[in-house]
Amino acid sequence: MTLKSESIGLVKQQYFTFAEPPNELKLDSGKTLGPITIAYETYGELNADKSNAILVVHALSGDAHAAGFHEGDKNPGWWDDLIGPNKALDTGRYFVICSNIIGGCKGSTGPSSINPKTGKPYALDFPIITIGDMVRAQKHLIDYLGIRKLLCVVGGSVGGMQVLQWVASYPKSVQSAIPIATAAKHSPQQIAFDEVGRQAVMADPAWNQGNYYDSSKPERGLAVARMIGHITYMSDKSMEEKFSRKLKDKDYSFKFTTDFEVEGYLRYRGDNFVKRFDANSYLYITKAMDYFDLSGAKLIPKDKSIDVRFLVISFKSDWLYPSYQSQDIVRQLKIRGVDATYCEINSTYGHDAFLLEVEEETRLIKHFLKKTFHGYNIAR
Amino acid sequence: MTLKSESIGLVKQQYFTFAEPPNELKLDSGKTLGPITIAYETYGELNADKSNAILVVHALSGDAHAAGFHEGDKNPGWWDDLIGPNKALDTGRYFVICSNIIGGCKGSTGPSSINPKTGKPYALDFPIITIGDMVRAQKHLIDYLGIRKLLCVVGGSVGGMQVLQWVASYPKSVQSAIPIATAAKHSPQQIAFDEVGRQAVMADPAWNQGNYYDSSKPERGLAVARMIGHITYMSDKSMEEKFSRKLKDKDYSFKFTTDFEVEGYLRYRGDNFVKRFDANSYLYITKAMDYFDLSGAKLIPKDKSIDVRFLVISFKSDWLYPSYQSQDIVRQLKIRGVDATYCEINSTYGHDAFLLEVEEETRLIKHFLKKTFHGYNIAR
Repeated sequence: MTLKSESIGLVKQQYFTFAEPPNELKLDSGKTLGPITIAYETYGELNADKSNAILVVHALSGDAHAAGFHEGDKNPGWWDDLIGPNKALDTGRYFVICSNIIGGCKGSTGPSSINPKTGKPYALDFPIITIGDMVRAQKHLIDYLGIRKLLCVVGGSVGGMQVLQWVASYPKSVQSAIPIATAAKHSPQQIAFDEVGRQAVMADPAWNQGNYYDSSKPERGLAVARMIGHITYMSDKSMEEKFSRKLKDKDYSFKFTTDFEVEGYLRYRGDNFVKRFDANSYLYITKAMDYFDLSGAKLIPKDKSIDVRFLVISFKSDWLYPSYQSQDIVRQLKIRGVDATYCEINSTYGHDAFLLEVEEETRLIKHFLKKTFHGYNIAR
Repeated sequence: MTLKSESIGLVKQQYFTFAEPPNELKLDSGKTLGPITIAYETYGELNADKSNAILVVHALSGDAHAAGFHEGDKNPGWWDDLIGPNKALDTGRYFVICSNIIGGCKGSTGPSSINPKTGKPYALDFPIITIGDMVRAQKHLIDYLGIRKLLCVVGGSVGGMQVLQWVASYPKSVQSAIPIATAAKHSPQQIAFDEVGRQAVMADPAWNQGNYYDSSKPERGLAVARMIGHITYMSDKSMEEKFSRKLKDKDYSFKFTTDFEVEGYLRYRGDNFVKRFDANSYLYITKAMDYFDLSGAKLIPKDKSIDVRFLVISFKSDWLYPSYQSQDIVRQLKIRGVDATYCEINSTYGHDAFLLEVEEETRLIKHFLKKTFHGYNIAR
C-alpha cells in the first residue's frame, strides 16, 4: 500500500476570523487581542447530529496541516500516519479538525501578524498568551463550526497541555480526551531547556528586541534553540541507534566543523527550522508552556462535574516529558473519580515517539475512540 | 570545626614550562605545540621515595586550584572538601598535585596564550588537542617533579577521561586510578550537547572566528553554552528540590525576563562564567572530549601488562554521564583481568554529584587509597 492510497488526499487550509466585542479576545493576562484569525484544516465529514468531531491540537512547531497533502507537496501533514481512512482517527467515521495555535506563525494570529493598530507586525507588542488563551480561541472555532460537544480532543506535547486545558476550561464541551507525552505543569528542568532556547534567540543581535521583520532574522540564535530542542526530543538510545559515533569528516585541520554525524544532523535541523518558523513565536509559545499549570486539584475544577473519559499515553524513553508526569495526571483524575486509562508505550524514540509510534498509538486510540463514540451515541 | 581548620590553608599556583626538542610537543594531530607552560598546585609533602604522589585532574571549567586558599580569597579550591588534612586525599599522608589542562585558560598554554611565533594570542591557530595531548603534557610535569610512579590519578567528568588516558598511555607510571562520573567515549547525546554549546559560542558575532582578544568577547554565546551545561549537570530531581516552580517576578507586562527562579539561576551562572572562562578554550576542550575514545579493547592496550587498581564511581541521577558508561569501563577492566571496584552512589545531584557527594566519596576514596598505598609499599 502506498502512502497515497492510505491518505485522505488533497486538503486545503481554511481561515476563521472572529472577535469578541469590542472586536477583541480577553486574555488571561487581562490584556486583549483582536480580531483573531485561526488557520485550520478539517478531514472527513461532520455527521448530522455533529457528534463525530475530533479536535487535534499540535505541538510547539506544528501547524494546522495534520493530514493529507497540500497541492504540489511531496510530504503529507505531520500526523498523517494517524489521520485518514481506517487510521486511528478514521476519517470515514469521524470529522477531524486541526487548528493552528494563536501565538504561532502558521496562519493564526501571532507576533508576526500585522497589528491592525499600527499596520506593522506585532513583534513584542503581541501580548503574552497562555495555553488557556490558545484553547479559548479554539473554542470560538468549534462554536463557529456548530459543534456543541467534541467527541475527543487529542494531542501530544504542548498539544497534550491544550487537551488538559480543554477539559479544565470547557468540561461540558468534551466527551473524551487523549493527552499524549505531556505534563500538567513544566518542571524546572523543562523550564530551563525552554529558557536556554529563548536566551539563544535573544542573544542573537539580529533579534533586535523582536523587531526584525523588515531586516535579517535571528537565524543563528533560533537554530541553536532548535538544536537544543532536538536533543531533548530524542533519547540517548535513539541517538545511539541513529548516529553512533559515525564520523562525517574528521579532519584535525578543519576546526569546529561537523566531525560527527549527530552534529551534521543537528545543524541541518536547526538551519531548516529557521526557514519555516518565527523566532518571536518560539519565545511566546515556550513561555506559554512554562506558565501552564494545571497540577494537583487545578486539573479538574472542583465546582464542575466531569463526565469526560481519558486515555493518557506516555513513552518509556521520553525524558523531556517523563512518564511520571503522565502518571501524576492519571493520579489526579482517579482522585476525582474520572474515568481514565493509562498506557506507557515501551518506545526507544524519546519524546519524538508521539509522532513515530504509529502502530501502538493506532491500536490504543482507535479502540478508545470506538468505545467512546459508541457510548456517546447510546447515551444520547 | 570551621572550614579554615580543615583546610590546608594558603596555597600558591606554580608554573612549569617545557619543550620537547625542537622546542615543541608532538600532538596526536601530527602538529606540534611549544613551548608549553603548565599551571599547577601541590599540597602536602612528597616522601623520600616519592611513592605518595596523587595527581588530581580537573573537569571542563576547572583549574589547578583544587584545594586551600589563594591569598585574599574567600572560597577555597574546587575540591577542597576532598583534599586536606584527614580528608579523602589526606595531605598529611599524600603529596597531591593538580595541574591545569593545556587548551584551557587558567595558566596553562591554551588558545588565549601568546603564540611565540606571532606575539599575539593563538586564537584558532592553536592546534586541535586531545585528551591524550593533555595527559602527555601532564607526564612532563610529573617527570619534572621526579615522580616515577603516581600512587593514584583521580578525577571526575573530563578529569575521569584523563584518568583513563593516563592508564592507557603510561600504565607503568600509575599505581591506581579513580575515574569518577565519566565515560570511555562520548555518546551521540553527549556530543550533541557539546556541539550545541559550541554553536552557541560561534553564533555570537563577537566570536569573530576566534579573534576577539583585543575586542569585546562572545559573552552572550558563551553564557548560553554554559546554561546548557548547567542543565545537564543537575538532575530533574535536584532542580525540582532547588527551584520547584518558584517565581522570581511573574509579570505579564515584562516579556521574556526571568519569571522562574531556575531561569534566574541559569542566567546568573551563565553571566558569571564568561568572566572567568575563555570561549575558545570552551571550543577546544569540548572537542577534545568528543574525540576521546578509549572504548572497548582500546581502554587497556593489548601489548601492555597492567598492574593498576581501579575504583570506578558513578552517580545514580547523573544522566549526562549515566552509570551504564561507568559499567562499560568496569566490564572492559574485568575482561582484561584488571583489579577493579565499582560503586554507584545513590545521589540525586546529577553530574554535579562528583563535587557534592563528599561523605560518600571520602569513605570510598580514603579506604581505597590506604589499601593501595599499603600494598604498594609492601610490594616494593
